[in-house]
Amino acid sequence: MVVNFINEGSVTDVQGFEAGATYAGMKTYAKDKYDLGIIWSDLPCVSAGVFTTNKVISPSTSVSRDNVLKGNVQAVTVNSGIANAGVGNAGKLDAEEVIELTANKLNIKSENVAFLSTGIIGVELPMALIRTALQKIEFQPNSGQLYAKAMMTTDTKPKECSVTVSTNGREFKIGGVCKGTGMIHPNMATMLAVVTTDAPIDQKLLQDIVKHTADESFNMISVDGDMSTNDSYIILSNGAAGGEIITYESPEHEDIQNSIKEVVQYLAKEMVRDGEGATKLFQVTIENANNIEEARDAARTISSSSLVKTAVHGNDPNWGRLLASLGSSKAEVDESKLSVYINDICILEDGLPIPFFKDAIIQQMVDSEITFRINLNLGESSASAWGCNLSEEYVHFNSAYTT
Amino acid sequence: MVVNFINEGSVTDVQGFEAGATYAGMKTYAKDKYDLGIIWSDLPCVSAGVFTTNKVISPSTSVSRDNVLKGNVQAVTVNSGIANAGVGNAGKLDAEEVIELTANKLNIKSENVAFLSTGIIGVELPMALIRTALQKIEFQPNSGQLYAKAMMTTDTKPKECSVTVSTNGREFKIGGVCKGTGMIHPNMATMLAVVTTDAPIDQKLLQDIVKHTADESFNMISVDGDMSTNDSYIILSNGAAGGEIITYESPEHEDIQNSIKEVVQYLAKEMVRDGEGATKLFQVTIENANNIEEARDAARTISSSSLVKTAVHGNDPNWGRLLASLGSSKAEVDESKLSVYINDICILEDGLPIPFFKDAIIQQMVDSEITFRINLNLGESSASAWGCNLSEEYVHFNSAYTT
Repeated sequence: MVVNFINEGSVTDVQGFEAGATYAGMKTYAKDKYDLGIIWSDLPCVSAGVFTTNKVISPSTSVSRDNVLKGNVQAVTVNSGIANAGVGNAGKLDAEEVIELTANKLNIKSENVAFLSTGIIGVELPMALIRTALQKIEFQPNSGQLYAKAMMTTDTKPKECSVTVSTNGREFKIGGVCKGTGMIHPNMATMLAVVTTDAPIDQKLLQDIVKHTADESFNMISVDGDMSTNDSYIILSNGAAGGEIITYESPEHEDIQNSIKEVVQYLAKEMVRDGEGATKLFQVTIENANNIEEARDAARTISSSSLVKTAVHGNDPNWGRLLASLGSSKAEVDESKLSVYINDICILEDGLPIPFFKDAIIQQMVDSEITFRINLNLGESSASAWGCNLSEEYVHFNSAYTT
Repeated sequence: MVVNFINEGSVTDVQGFEAGATYAGMKTYAKDKYDLGIIWSDLPCVSAGVFTTNKVISPSTSVSRDNVLKGNVQAVTVNSGIANAGVGNAGKLDAEEVIELTANKLNIKSENVAFLSTGIIGVELPMALIRTALQKIEFQPNSGQLYAKAMMTTDTKPKECSVTVSTNGREFKIGGVCKGTGMIHPNMATMLAVVTTDAPIDQKLLQDIVKHTADESFNMISVDGDMSTNDSYIILSNGAAGGEIITYESPEHEDIQNSIKEVVQYLAKEMVRDGEGATKLFQVTIENANNIEEARDAARTISSSSLVKTAVHGNDPNWGRLLASLGSSKAEVDESKLSVYINDICILEDGLPIPFFKDAIIQQMVDSEITFRINLNLGESSASAWGCNLSEEYVHFNSAYTT
């Protein structure tokens, strides 16, 4: 496999997909006022997705989930500024109308359309504004970035990329876009992601791919149980590259899945980097856990600990906080077998602290990217999660701004 | 029952208990330098306790847990500044020596002594200093506050109280002391609490009481799964008040349990109020949940949400954050049945937002105590949890200080 990564890439790099966006009047606080966008493929698509497990769910999300899982969504409308959540039955009627308006505009069926919302909770969508604005949206190729901007809330920049994959003599494109900032977890900031591809993929396999790649990307920055009312990750495959449909048995299966994983891991890390008030990205890697669930839980628990996040902020090699957080996770821990590394420098071995030169480690931690690696020495499973520093700016931001 | 609450009270208000404290040289950063203390009863005691479930546990805690659960601990030594955790086998040897030194000093058996530690992880106890200092500790009645100071780390003030209970023609005293600040949960700040009473209580009942009262106090500010390496809550009952031993069948059983609950709820709220950088206490009450586990989980999830904590800090009546956090808890939620109140003002009814006068609610939230009440209208179980605002000072504090 050869994968070509294009970080200026976008969802419209993939043939057959085009996008458009406009300003309807919802995202009044942002400089860049795109707040309503559509991405779609004029070719029919196979669709798959994972959605928030929050018991308070936006009707935009629940209606879209039903359509995506039917398997043939080929258009995703997005609005930012208002989450369309906590407004009773009006939210459902509005979501259905936006989907119908989009379907009419594109001359496709309602069940081929999804609608994602993000913004404040408890305010109804201004449907009069949306009806007018939706008609104004014009599609152009290479306009993926307008779509990326239309889903931003407190994001400081659009988050998108694309890759070209050569595998088994075939060539495919994959594009991805997402929004999401805040501290993600334990914060409830909404995470939205859309991936497009011209690879023809079997729907059952695609649903499997979306789940697996979420588990190694978005779910490692945002724990399922702590999702917002609107979190969604959707893949659309229009098969424009031609050739046989890729199934579980196809030789291309694994390469396609890994390439999609590369796209969404990049997007997930971009989200962490763009966390409110964040200036540093850190990775927590758990090695040799008993099983993958324990490895993931430990990595996520540590990466979302407020004390670890503030230690990163203060360049403090405070490994006691790593241990206390690890011990509170679901992972089995035998203290006498533990090794801990900061940027590959061993600071604890067999459960015993190594008297390290603190100033040198502090110097390492001044960097904008830090890795904590913990070897449990129990089993064979590993996992990584990502977090950002918790800064005074985060508190200021979330005290002053109604998200 | 008549309960007389004394908030200047202490653990030595209870007859038969005396305390002493000194400075051994561990808590170098605090103004008030008591860092080693002992509380004990010269009468034999019945003991019970609950301890951290963290898989990385301080040997001070694990050795003490064994002694407390044997049921006859009558002395609790405490040190602050060093947690005696993350130091391999040396930690166990040191904990055992402190317990033995205490037993020798008091002329009791080692199994009658517990030892609690709190402070930084990864540093060995300075045993030479402790051996000398322990001998210097002198006991006086009414010296409970010295003991309270000896367990403080980043606490800004000692936390203690006592009550007098009249029930069924008998009179008992209960005293309590604790330490713990930080954000408690999700922070890993250690929580230590010791309760003394002259009521003669059956050991099995006492163990039940410690568990139940923890569930309605300390566990509602600090989730089990997120405890520190050293968290402990111990009750000592010396029976000095005389009379028949109180068992499950005794008429005094319920009153005693409720009085101990009152003591530890006061202490728990004091801890939240003294959170690092905290200026506000808020209570989250969940009403009419399906069952008590769901009610507790929902209350704790909301009270520990960073977004809710920052909203409280910014006086922002952002009920969308309450809903998103509630939906991510384990509680069943039917959005159409939900009511939400801020300080008894209804802002959401049957899942629909009430267009409230925002300035009036902001004014309510400026107060130093705020109540969020959520009625799920599903079952009959209720629970309350407590949290504090997340402030810029918290971040500053935890970035700059190795806890």
